[in-house]
Amino acid sequence: MKDVQNQPDARKMSIDRVGVTRLRYPVTVLDRKNGIQHTVGDLEMTVSLPHHFRGTHMSRFIEILNEHHRELHIDKIGDVLEKMKSRLEAEEAHIRLRFPYFIEKAAPATGAMGLVEYTGLYEGSLSGKMDFMLGVEVPVTTLCPCSKEISESGAHNQRSIVRIRIRYSSFVWLEDLIETAEACASSPVYSLLKREDEKAVTETAYSRPMFAEDMVRDIALKLEQDPRILWYGAESENMESIHNHNAFASIERWKTGAGRKS
Amino acid sequence: MKDVQNQPDARKMSIDRVGVTRLRYPVTVLDRKNGIQHTVGDLEMTVSLPHHFRGTHMSRFIEILNEHHRELHIDKIGDVLEKMKSRLEAEEAHIRLRFPYFIEKAAPATGAMGLVEYTGLYEGSLSGKMDFMLGVEVPVTTLCPCSKEISESGAHNQRSIVRIRIRYSSFVWLEDLIETAEACASSPVYSLLKREDEKAVTETAYSRPMFAEDMVRDIALKLEQDPRILWYGAESENMESIHNHNAFASIERWKTGAGRKS
Amino acid sequence: MKDVQNQPDARKMSIDRVGVTRLRYPVTVLDRKNGIQHTVGDLEMTVSLPHHFRGTHMSRFIEILNEHHRELHIDKIGDVLEKMKSRLEAEEAHIRLRFPYFIEKAAPATGAMGLVEYTGLYEGSLSGKMDFMLGVEVPVTTLCPCSKEISESGAHNQRSIVRIRIRYSSFVWLEDLIETAEACASSPVYSLLKREDEKAVTETAYSRPMFAEDMVRDIALKLEQDPRILWYGAESENMESIHNHNAFASIERWKTGAGRKS
Amino acid sequence: MKDVQNQPDARKMSIDRVGVTRLRYPVTVLDRKNGIQHTVGDLEMTVSLPHHFRGTHMSRFIEILNEHHRELHIDKIGDVLEKMKSRLEAEEAHIRLRFPYFIEKAAPATGAMGLVEYTGLYEGSLSGKMDFMLGVEVPVTTLCPCSKEISESGAHNQRSIVRIRIRYSSFVWLEDLIETAEACASSPVYSLLKREDEKAVTETAYSRPMFAEDMVRDIALKLEQDPRILWYGAESENMESIHNHNAFASIERWKTGAGRKS
Repeated sequence: MKDVQNQPDARKMSIDRVGVTRLRYPVTVLDRKNGIQHTVGDLEMTVSLPHHFRGTHMSRFIEILNEHHRELHIDKIGDVLEKMKSRLEAEEAHIRLRFPYFIEKAAPATGAMGLVEYTGLYEGSLSGKMDFMLGVEVPVTTLCPCSKEISESGAHNQRSIVRIRIRYSSFVWLEDLIETAEACASSPVYSLLKREDEKAVTETAYSRPMFAEDMVRDIALKLEQDPRILWYGAESENMESIHNHNAFASIERWKTGAGRKS
Repeated sequence: MKDVQNQPDARKMSIDRVGVTRLRYPVTVLDRKNGIQHTVGDLEMTVSLPHHFRGTHMSRFIEILNEHHRELHIDKIGDVLEKMKSRLEAEEAHIRLRFPYFIEKAAPATGAMGLVEYTGLYEGSLSGKMDFMLGVEVPVTTLCPCSKEISESGAHNQRSIVRIRIRYSSFVWLEDLIETAEACASSPVYSLLKREDEKAVTETAYSRPMFAEDMVRDIALKLEQDPRILWYGAESENMESIHNHNAFASIERWKTGAGRKS
Repeated sequence: MKDVQNQPDARKMSIDRVGVTRLRYPVTVLDRKNGIQHTVGDLEMTVSLPHHFRGTHMSRFIEILNEHHRELHIDKIGDVLEKMKSRLEAEEAHIRLRFPYFIEKAAPATGAMGLVEYTGLYEGSLSGKMDFMLGVEVPVTTLCPCSKEISESGAHNQRSIVRIRIRYSSFVWLEDLIETAEACASSPVYSLLKREDEKAVTETAYSRPMFAEDMVRDIALKLEQDPRILWYGAESENMESIHNHNAFASIERWKTGAGRKS
Repeated sequence: MKDVQNQPDARKMSIDRVGVTRLRYPVTVLDRKNGIQHTVGDLEMTVSLPHHFRGTHMSRFIEILNEHHRELHIDKIGDVLEKMKSRLEAEEAHIRLRFPYFIEKAAPATGAMGLVEYTGLYEGSLSGKMDFMLGVEVPVTTLCPCSKEISESGAHNQRSIVRIRIRYSSFVWLEDLIETAEACASSPVYSLLKREDEKAVTETAYSRPMFAEDMVRDIALKLEQDPRILWYGAESENMESIHNHNAFASIERWKTGAGRKS
């Protein structure tokens, strides 16, 4: 049977990235408290393609995934990328995995337990050396400092999504990044709040007003102080309760002295 | 050329609805203030198919749309449905059109003008008689009565989406439904707010706390009192600022004495 | 602390449904082959609210979920609904759970194994009696009979989504409905196909051309013949490769003699 | 009234981008055939914020938009960015506008006219100098060369989305990029096809099999040959009819000799 993908190509045009996107797969990932967590990943796996091949072999991406028995722990990403490079005869390999991630959180007054959903992100590239980025999306409450300052009572507040991505020199947990995001918000969000808890959350948020700008700055300062972190991106998108559009702020930095990816 | 769709079908199974979905089309709709408004519609057009035909003729839906020169004013929906019934030789025809709809709104203190986006909905069916439903989605602010009552200061609030649908006996504007929704919220939302306006919106919302339950009840009461309206559905979905899930409430009623669709 | 939700309400307006939406929760569901499957649910839980109460107690929905230790097997839905009714003092309770569901499937020629993603749906209501609906979304290939008939070679084909929902008198597996959908398509889809498999899938699809209309009729006929099933809805939405819109067909029926829900 | 945003900030942390996202606004854009086209934009407008200011003034973004009377022609983007820089006292300003864009297209055999939806993209940045990117998303048909080669009859095909972005030295129409994408696909897609047209489209696609890899290479070659273009990105995402995931290929290049943005 003819291998059309392996045919020579005369166009002299290499391709940066070719592969599969929107591939959904059940995976297990590392969980700081429970060891592992079962979740469902949304995957993108691509490789570079030299100018002399007509196409890549898409089925090999799935075969590599299968060999890992659905375990996509953070420390397996390097292996997956190595296999992608060698099996697909590529100079570069890239993987991106997004997944819902749940943590049990105690309500602030009653201690009632509830699960909160976050989104985890692993993004890795391998050419000569490995480049790995860990990310997280964290829902939080933000309360507007301007609205509080100028109003006789109350202040507009809303659900916001904080996104943090880092490159690091030694291991960082998703949970560490989530704690950083929640510590810099007006308040964390919870799934289960009794009346006493709702009082506590409301009063905490009112006592800690934060612009999107404040939040990304405070997160950036915390990440600056963490010696494990080489690069970071921090952004906040506030689903403004007084508008039908969002307020947004973003900071991205290589730390001084960190080996910048060329 | 063979007409495969027109082939007889032996399965003795009529089809309730067959047609096109996710069809996007530029349309003009009626605008209370400006006469017409240009927008982009998302359309679903379907007909019933008797058991003895194998398939419908999908291209005819598009032809009918084209004949209307992109005008899908509310009073043309009946014509479109008539044409769908006759050209597709169907017992029943259905259309659903959703579209972004913009209204210029003055900020509450400075009067600064800004455009707010709503979603309009026309939904029509024609079998023996015509059944038409007008709908709208309205972003608003809601502020939690419980949070206000139990907290020393502040109260959680958030962006909410109110959805109203009605069947009516005499013409109702989209704008009428939007005004109803905004009048029953803690506050409308705006695209342009100066500091004085933000103060006004914050204080108004704080003075008018509303559960999702309160809002749908107040909307329902207003719709009950409007003699033009025969049937209504009112719902509110609050993107809770203290949770990562939404709070929801919904009421749907035929008014006493209104001719219920069998 | 005041219980604002429990306050009397003078508006004389009961609420059909009030509760939580877009609640994401890790759950386990029954799996025909492996016993259970870990997945992530998207939940909607609502109850009716009598006219004399101002609001419902949203936190109780989460508490009920927690008591089930993340197990939302199909045979637990009744218990969950009972608890919702009693704890929230409601006449009616509703739950809807959607979740990604994976099945290992062998490629048609080489037998290579790969996981395919489906979407499962449990929808239950409890007022006097229980009403339960099981649903599934199945991606398949459809190849157009008209295009094949009139063209000298080739035929347009595309990814389609089949949706089946049933009410039943004795237990039906999600896997049963998935097999029904795949048996009525031009071909199932796979995640892993080697060249021999791609040849088989292409030739199978070309030999089994199916309109959206054909597919829903064949599914309906199969469901008619299954004595366990009382009611069914079958629809297909084809992401037409020759259009930027979709083709759609839908059939919904109570079987003759089945106890129709009033 | 206190200007909280204007307060000094002691954190010594400048912010890369701050502003509004998911802002929807009715806009007119240039249309090669009809002069202008009315559509609905999805906007992101951000500026940099120096370390010594606490916050930006979000309402000014909306004011700038309003002054343009809803006209966001491509040649106004520079003015908008200039105003953003000066009114918000920023070093850098960014804007991104996405909008549905419709072109009337004649069916290949009968010449029947129908509107096809594309997505337009304007993306501009202004710091010292202006950087502008024009983009488009084009739905097309792709037919798999491997499937055709190895199968006795038929070949799998599907709807694909081609995305092209360019930086240019002299004006390029959206329509030019759309023609490039459609010329490199197995076939364009249409909204209105009669039977003769469906035959033509099916046979054309079968005679022009294209991998995602082929398509992005052919597009890249065309863009390489266009002297107006300095930089390009071309990608194709195929909604594979035989899988539930997509096939993807992407090329991004500064042309030799083109002034690369530092």
